[in-house]
Amino acid sequence: MKSLELIGVEGLPEVRSGDDLAQLLSAHAKFQPGDVLVMAQKVVSKAEGRLIDLAAVVAGEDAVRIAGGLIANPDPRMVQVVLDESVRVLRSERVLITETRQGYVSANAGVDHSNVGGHDKLTLLPVDPDASAKRLRVRLQELTGVEVGVIISDTFGRPWRLGIVNVALGVAGMPATVDLRGTLDDDGEPLRATVLAIADDIAAGAGLVMGKTNRTPAVIVRGLELRGSGSGRDLIRPQAEDLFR
Amino acid sequence: MKSLELIGVEGLPEVRSGDDLAQLLSAHAKFQPGDVLVMAQKVVSKAEGRLIDLAAVVAGEDAVRIAGGLIANPDPRMVQVVLDESVRVLRSERVLITETRQGYVSANAGVDHSNVGGHDKLTLLPVDPDASAKRLRVRLQELTGVEVGVIISDTFGRPWRLGIVNVALGVAGMPATVDLRGTLDDDGEPLRATVLAIADDIAAGAGLVMGKTNRTPAVIVRGLELRGSGSGRDLIRPQAEDLFR
Repeated sequence: MKSLELIGVEGLPEVRSGDDLAQLLSAHAKFQPGDVLVMAQKVVSKAEGRLIDLAAVVAGEDAVRIAGGLIANPDPRMVQVVLDESVRVLRSERVLITETRQGYVSANAGVDHSNVGGHDKLTLLPVDPDASAKRLRVRLQELTGVEVGVIISDTFGRPWRLGIVNVALGVAGMPATVDLRGTLDDDGEPLRATVLAIADDIAAGAGLVMGKTNRTPAVIVRGLELRGSGSGRDLIRPQAEDLFR
Repeated sequence: MKSLELIGVEGLPEVRSGDDLAQLLSAHAKFQPGDVLVMAQKVVSKAEGRLIDLAAVVAGEDAVRIAGGLIANPDPRMVQVVLDESVRVLRSERVLITETRQGYVSANAGVDHSNVGGHDKLTLLPVDPDASAKRLRVRLQELTGVEVGVIISDTFGRPWRLGIVNVALGVAGMPATVDLRGTLDDDGEPLRATVLAIADDIAAGAGLVMGKTNRTPAVIVRGLELRGSGSGRDLIRPQAEDLFR
């Protein structure tokens, strides 16, 4: 594979709860076998109704206390929602870093503000991004007859390096990692401990086309020639094996 | 920007110390104004002579002790070289994570095995990857008359997520980050704390074309339409501000 295309899907309408994303996508893009579709989490969450009305949330004591110590000075109700979406708080001074129910470590558990129809809503991560990716893949195949890989992506911060990058939360119909251990490098030396997080590399590349503000929540990556299958869970480092912690 | 091309530069010969990388590249690729060239660190290091003969290294006590506790069971002389390239050891049990002289936090300080002309050598990161990127950019402009952005990349592991991803070490002739704070998102809401690490996203995308074993150390990214300038240092989170630590 010596060349790749990253193609933004243009003209998608504002997505609402219950929308058939695959139908919207197939009306605005032509898929080819082997394409990988990278889909921004926020749109998937909206289609799946993973929205909470801020007005319906009551902040508990912990949420009020934590909110007071955060740089962003968030609404304590938003902090409450982040805590509800999390199984463990890693840090709650200045920034709120948690482990989500899905196993991701991120700021604010992926909870984001969104104005939907003039109301203050919060979008939550899909309950199971791998399942979301799989449903989208199956439905796209039903509608178009074409098999594609699907990645549900979101932008995450990371330790040691500044800025956010797009990463893969859910993966279907393609591998999430490529394990090169045992193969030889250019010099004929065995590669050590080399597992490529290709779904994250793909998500990051697609992030360049998505931007953050422009309305391009779907990107087609063409030319990858991937084989095999995997899931977003393959990219989560089990806590016990996390040698960086 | 709605579509991007990632083009691998094919046919580059084995690079040796003292080689003029820009000359090799311009003989194998046609550059266009606004292109970003992503160049694998190992090739830059070889051209710059950042190689150490393993036979010439003597491991000190610390290196021998640390080597004994690492999963990879490395040659203590390699550990010595990693320590020499580092200003701080973050972890030395099972894996060796350090902060390099350049400020990166990574496994083994980016030191890698390489067989050069039948001898066991270690490649070190460029002394100043931003300077390497700038030299390459200036020399490419001399030779081709075309101004391109340049990224020197390497594959790094990261906490919490499995697998390695390609990241930007050195950057020239383009911004490393895009600061969206103060702009509005799709819903008209102000974006909070949104600094995109675009040079890392670009490096990651290019990493898909580079692979790890195939001989494609140079990738041209076309269609980005970037403005401004920055450096690889923009992507390093200062220790005092690292809210994840």
